[in-house]
Amino acid sequence: MMKRDERNLSMLTDFYELTMMNGYLEKGMGDTVAVFDVFFRTIPDNGGFAIFAGLEQLIDYLKNLNFTEDDIEYLRSKNCFSETFLDYLRNFKFCCDVWSIPEGTPIFPKEPIIVVKGPAIQAQFIETVVLLIANHQSLIATKANRIVRSAQGRPVMEFGSRRAQNADAAVLGARAAYIGGVSATACAMTDRDYGVPAVGTMAHSWVQLMGSEYEAFKAYAETYPNNCTLLVDTYNVLKSGVPNAIKVFDEVLKPLGIRPKGIRIDSGDIAYLSVKARKMLDDAGYPDCGIVASNSLDEYIIRDLIHQGASINSFGVGENLITAKSDPVFGCVYKLAAVERGGELKPVIKISESVGKITIPDFKTFYRFYSKENGKAVADYITLYDEDAPNTDEPIEIFHPEATWKKKVLTNVVAKKMLVPIFEKGECVYESPSIQEIKKYCAEQIETLWDEVKRFEYPHKYYVDLSPKLWNIQNALLTEMNGKWE
Amino acid sequence: MMKRDERNLSMLTDFYELTMMNGYLEKGMGDTVAVFDVFFRTIPDNGGFAIFAGLEQLIDYLKNLNFTEDDIEYLRSKNCFSETFLDYLRNFKFCCDVWSIPEGTPIFPKEPIIVVKGPAIQAQFIETVVLLIANHQSLIATKANRIVRSAQGRPVMEFGSRRAQNADAAVLGARAAYIGGVSATACAMTDRDYGVPAVGTMAHSWVQLMGSEYEAFKAYAETYPNNCTLLVDTYNVLKSGVPNAIKVFDEVLKPLGIRPKGIRIDSGDIAYLSVKARKMLDDAGYPDCGIVASNSLDEYIIRDLIHQGASINSFGVGENLITAKSDPVFGCVYKLAAVERGGELKPVIKISESVGKITIPDFKTFYRFYSKENGKAVADYITLYDEDAPNTDEPIEIFHPEATWKKKVLTNVVAKKMLVPIFEKGECVYESPSIQEIKKYCAEQIETLWDEVKRFEYPHKYYVDLSPKLWNIQNALLTEMNGKWE
Repeated sequence: MMKRDERNLSMLTDFYELTMMNGYLEKGMGDTVAVFDVFFRTIPDNGGFAIFAGLEQLIDYLKNLNFTEDDIEYLRSKNCFSETFLDYLRNFKFCCDVWSIPEGTPIFPKEPIIVVKGPAIQAQFIETVVLLIANHQSLIATKANRIVRSAQGRPVMEFGSRRAQNADAAVLGARAAYIGGVSATACAMTDRDYGVPAVGTMAHSWVQLMGSEYEAFKAYAETYPNNCTLLVDTYNVLKSGVPNAIKVFDEVLKPLGIRPKGIRIDSGDIAYLSVKARKMLDDAGYPDCGIVASNSLDEYIIRDLIHQGASINSFGVGENLITAKSDPVFGCVYKLAAVERGGELKPVIKISESVGKITIPDFKTFYRFYSKENGKAVADYITLYDEDAPNTDEPIEIFHPEATWKKKVLTNVVAKKMLVPIFEKGECVYESPSIQEIKKYCAEQIETLWDEVKRFEYPHKYYVDLSPKLWNIQNALLTEMNGKWE
Repeated sequence: MMKRDERNLSMLTDFYELTMMNGYLEKGMGDTVAVFDVFFRTIPDNGGFAIFAGLEQLIDYLKNLNFTEDDIEYLRSKNCFSETFLDYLRNFKFCCDVWSIPEGTPIFPKEPIIVVKGPAIQAQFIETVVLLIANHQSLIATKANRIVRSAQGRPVMEFGSRRAQNADAAVLGARAAYIGGVSATACAMTDRDYGVPAVGTMAHSWVQLMGSEYEAFKAYAETYPNNCTLLVDTYNVLKSGVPNAIKVFDEVLKPLGIRPKGIRIDSGDIAYLSVKARKMLDDAGYPDCGIVASNSLDEYIIRDLIHQGASINSFGVGENLITAKSDPVFGCVYKLAAVERGGELKPVIKISESVGKITIPDFKTFYRFYSKENGKAVADYITLYDEDAPNTDEPIEIFHPEATWKKKVLTNVVAKKMLVPIFEKGECVYESPSIQEIKKYCAEQIETLWDEVKRFEYPHKYYVDLSPKLWNIQNALLTEMNGKWE
């Protein structure tokens, strides 16, 4: 049933990628090997971690890269590209190496989430879509996980398609939300194409169309006796909706020996209404009938509702999840880390007046240290790509890359290499796990994080440190650069 | 060169639309005529108006509605749909009437932007995508127009693809931004498919890859002498970037008799840097060389930069535009307004504890009154669909629908009917204007708004009033409903 996205997104690119490609080719730099890192600087909503998602779609994009004659014709019409370049595009064959962390992995600022190594002309080109996909799905997976954690075990459903920022945002946003922990989506296309279970019962229009609320509930219960969740707030939750629901449960479901599934409240003071409705359902003999809440919810409102003792069994979350409304941009960037000069890869740095924006140079990989005692993640450790893996048989001293006097000695840990090969010379060498496996892996990985990192307010800052070798390279480049414009 | 979106989005739907459709059919209500309105309640960013966009894509969606055998198979696997219903979908043929306001029109809360009339089973079904398309493109067109107005005539370019909420948000967001007034986009696909001019020159990686900033600028000027905008902030704007740019303008462009196009500053204090850079360029004989600014801009920062006397000729705006970051959800809703009972259309209302959320019942249309004296829009006026058009030969008294004592008499106005037929019995009867025509129409329509309505802070609330007939119908339904659960 899985249908991968086979659209050709090759022309979804910032125009400057094309002008640069053409320029690299003109200047004989097209084949110069370049290494680019994808990383981010700030965790949305001031959280303690983010979740990486979108790799499967990124692989589809890279596999489908090609330029049609229409594309070539369009580019020619811009009057700025050489025929040599247009020929290059006509025969384009992706040949880069790509490493990535698996989908569903918790990620932290500054570490390389994706690394691309290959001819400058190609490694440069894919920037726009690599960022677009990683940014969007990571944004939504991260937000979804916050909302799911706020619900403390109660299922959360994704209900936001109509407020999504267009079709892909709805469909792939629901996919990312599922990775982040929601139990289902309202979006049928995400179910059909990505195997995320779709759910849904009725809108207010069903109740309005059917003449009366009672008739509407009766018609629904007769049509869907086994999945009977009734929307009780079209007129008046406590005076009309819940009494009519109970009447229909009694009249239609009870004779069939079927238990009702739930009621849904979509407006009003849900804390108050849910408690009153719960009592009415209990008194009527339906203590097992769930209450679904679904009105402009997010992690803060859900936390408050639970704190206030609302009687809610599951949550439907719309616009605040599907757009990550409170912080709707994920800031992955794509930065040059190394470039071939005279046949050798040389580290490159981007300096900035703001210390936090300085990049980590060179061709890299990174490790996550987990405690052998309790399985918890204790620090991430970025190294040169070809540096020896950290020797966890000995104590490992790590230090803060900006405040180097802040040190910590790790013992009794294992080191897991986080980046895995995805493409080798343009050939895909990675098979994406199923969406259910990704979701499960994500939940397991979040379990490895300390509660301090998962706190909504002022979370603990997880350690992301550099190996001494890498730190020295960065420091030497900084010193060299800084001397230039004193 | 225009390529319409021919993807089949039929399965992009909230699952409950399908369960309701199946239910309507089961209960013999599938062919009951229903009228749904699309309207919104709140203007993003506390603005005074919004801009409607997305109609062309909505038409494509409705034209392409159909269900494949795979879709049927998927739905059958959910074990909740009748074979009659699956057959209905297999032979689905859209047959509704649809009215809409044209793209690029300023819109105000509560007025019906789109009206759908047809068999309940169909009019219900299209809710999700109608809202998704109208919400996304209206959101971005509205935000773009705010940013463009803040720039006071200086061109604004859309640069946000990499931070968009996936591919459609990038491509169609750029389309909507163009309608809202941006002069160009960085997105090549939006140019190829929708005719929005794409622009772009270089990223920091170009400068880093080429060995030195001077060599990078030289290489660029040699490759693109006629479109030479150089990115001057990779190392140090005033000590390295601008001097190297001037050197290259002198060495490469001057001998060719070509004037440089511009420099771009993407970081640092742009107000300060732009003024200093302007002086350096002027002194070097390049007073005509533009300065482009592009670092996390939005309407507020641009207003501040101009207020502070920054010397900027054009702006590139990324994430804050393409996600409408400050308010990333447009709240169009799709509400039942009338339904057939005993062969006649009867008005339907959705009441709510919050007065602002009460719907306007019945099958409607609306007019905009323009002053004959100065062409300015003075009020919108919602009427029953088959009510006589307001007679502008006589003075027209309008009144506030909630505070009915607030009255105003309009004289010397013309009344323009805002909703135009788009589909008649499922046949498209409307041809979308070109994107350039829509953009031009949008700019003209915004010219008809008073400055008070266009203010960013505390704008004047534009009048949207009801005809007496319509007000009476709403009031009668409210009185009837309210009596029920006293």
